[in-house]
Amino acid sequence: MPKRIALLGSTGSIGTQTLNVIEKYPDDFKVEVMTAGSNAKLLAQQAVKFKPGTVVIGNKSHYQTLKDALKDVPVRVSAGDDAIEQVVTASNIDIVVAAMVGYSGLKPTIAAIRAGKKIALANKETLVVAGEIIRKLIKESGSRIIPVDSEHSAIFQCLTGESGNPIDTITLTASGGPFLNFTREMLEKVKPHEALKHPNWEMGNKVTVDSASLMNKGLEVIEAKWLFDLTPDQIKVIVHPQSIIHSMVHFADGSTKAQMGMPDMRIPILYALTYPDRFPSDLPKLDFKKCQTLTFFDPDLERFRNLALAYHALKMGGNMPCIMNAANEVAVNAFLAGKIGFLQMSDLVEYTMEKTEYLASPGLGFLETTNNMAKGIASDNIKKFIKKR
Amino acid sequence: MPKRIALLGSTGSIGTQTLNVIEKYPDDFKVEVMTAGSNAKLLAQQAVKFKPGTVVIGNKSHYQTLKDALKDVPVRVSAGDDAIEQVVTASNIDIVVAAMVGYSGLKPTIAAIRAGKKIALANKETLVVAGEIIRKLIKESGSRIIPVDSEHSAIFQCLTGESGNPIDTITLTASGGPFLNFTREMLEKVKPHEALKHPNWEMGNKVTVDSASLMNKGLEVIEAKWLFDLTPDQIKVIVHPQSIIHSMVHFADGSTKAQMGMPDMRIPILYALTYPDRFPSDLPKLDFKKCQTLTFFDPDLERFRNLALAYHALKMGGNMPCIMNAANEVAVNAFLAGKIGFLQMSDLVEYTMEKTEYLASPGLGFLETTNNMAKGIASDNIKKFIKKR
Repeated sequence: MPKRIALLGSTGSIGTQTLNVIEKYPDDFKVEVMTAGSNAKLLAQQAVKFKPGTVVIGNKSHYQTLKDALKDVPVRVSAGDDAIEQVVTASNIDIVVAAMVGYSGLKPTIAAIRAGKKIALANKETLVVAGEIIRKLIKESGSRIIPVDSEHSAIFQCLTGESGNPIDTITLTASGGPFLNFTREMLEKVKPHEALKHPNWEMGNKVTVDSASLMNKGLEVIEAKWLFDLTPDQIKVIVHPQSIIHSMVHFADGSTKAQMGMPDMRIPILYALTYPDRFPSDLPKLDFKKCQTLTFFDPDLERFRNLALAYHALKMGGNMPCIMNAANEVAVNAFLAGKIGFLQMSDLVEYTMEKTEYLASPGLGFLETTNNMAKGIASDNIKKFIKKR
Repeated sequence: MPKRIALLGSTGSIGTQTLNVIEKYPDDFKVEVMTAGSNAKLLAQQAVKFKPGTVVIGNKSHYQTLKDALKDVPVRVSAGDDAIEQVVTASNIDIVVAAMVGYSGLKPTIAAIRAGKKIALANKETLVVAGEIIRKLIKESGSRIIPVDSEHSAIFQCLTGESGNPIDTITLTASGGPFLNFTREMLEKVKPHEALKHPNWEMGNKVTVDSASLMNKGLEVIEAKWLFDLTPDQIKVIVHPQSIIHSMVHFADGSTKAQMGMPDMRIPILYALTYPDRFPSDLPKLDFKKCQTLTFFDPDLERFRNLALAYHALKMGGNMPCIMNAANEVAVNAFLAGKIGFLQMSDLVEYTMEKTEYLASPGLGFLETTNNMAKGIASDNIKKFIKKR
């Protein structure tokens, strides 16, 4: 029996790469549910090819387009965020791949956790925003999260077979992004299209900008805390421009384990689907002829302040990571729209973290409120950080 | 209850480092048996400190010296290789640390395997010479080998929690030794004291020369075959001068796992004693400030022919690895005695491999004969390879 998969965020970067993986193992995986936010056209094409039982489009205004495109296909079509939350809990789903981008991934992921599903988690925001709550829900429901992010997949892989063994620290590697060696003066002038060119990884726009600004690494630090139950001090970041070592666990006996590979998201996606097994694949293999030199150095928190902000948010806890994440979503959009400069993203995030109401132990409801509040505050104050030309 | 340990080769490099590890965990480990080949003086000192129940000196001519040195200590003293074989099988032994150097480690290790003991194996020659037989004996007795060599410990650690998962290849890293960048002309003139200076690791003389000549890596390739049930083509060697990545497993899904750490043998020794657990330690921790750049390149089999000879011996199988190992023991002694040059070690080994009777499926008896024959042939022909001055 193939494992039956609900793929949330089917049309995004992780979604399409997940389908690329799945189609190579038709006997092992069957896509049962596909959802997308608003890309009805691609979702319809994917549904024609993968023949899921159900497709859902989050944005209801695209429902008719999707329905029409699939009129000759035997598939249930629905729309709206509530519908997405419902389909992930269906009894015919074995694995939920949570690959939506941003805060919108939170609710369906929580629904899947409550339903006790195995979750291949690519949506960072779920744990960043609501890590403490998620940990509790997982304990209650018996759900299991297998991370898809290459860094967390690496840590997860290094921890297999090490149950209970004491950990000193973990090190998340950061490519440093396209602006690794830029001075502050150069960063001032960075254009959106430059930020969208990642040297190693193929990813969606939001994640690519976050990688360039190191906010992505900041979100990963927070995610790691909740995935692996660590203190902020146990989570280190090192810049490793080649992206060959994806992350490391430093055990208390002096031994370090690393997971490595060519930078290709399909490798951690495949692992999340097959865990605890591994399937032979034709994905690119590590070749030391192509990576004869690996380098490592500390990140510069003066030029890339987002990482410092993320550690601050992690130490504050409560709704602070949610505030930071919401402000960053606004900041990235403002940067991509050419409204604010690259460095002003950190300014806007920091400002929003200072101005939004802090609560040490928020429930899900207050997190939703926080998300809206922080986005409002960030949006309203973009003008304060308008790019100097 | 502390685990009770028989330490074979107590006075050697691995032996003394094992004691250094054990003394830090007095509640967890108790040295019950200590053996040495001929260093009665150090063995006596160690016995006074660690208070084992039994000490054995292999070379019977040192028995009285040892007995006298320990006359006021409540410890059983015996001598001879047979006595070593006996003590490792005693019911009060939980772990046998096999840390003798060279062929002499074979018999007591086999005795321990037959007795179903857990073995921390530092003696390469056991598996190099008799790998096929050892594998069978382990299946029959339920014994378990935990490798101590840093490379094999690395592979072993990378395989925890990966039971049954398909492996493409493994890569053993080689520091390249002190002569990594020497031309053949420079290698011609190398002196024994230069070969005894390893850039990264502290080891005994035999292993240090083997490291400089890459024979150590050749022996490790053969050892890896038997430890991890691989084909010769699945075992790769890469030169990694910093000795930070100790070895890697490349899984068939495209993911690579590596074990890393500062080059300190006490880390894999501790792991072999505590496996499957890990104990917190004060051993040196990986510090990327000290290793900002890691490099990797293919070994040069023209300059370091021993590695090619080892692959040849592995592919031939039978008693060929035994022949190679015996010839190499003679060659290293001849080099250290200043009789032959550095490059002539490979010549002597190759000559002996050609001249000694080959048998595809030798029993233990014939392996013993092979070891003696090959040593005889190598010794008798040293003069053919006398260093040109």
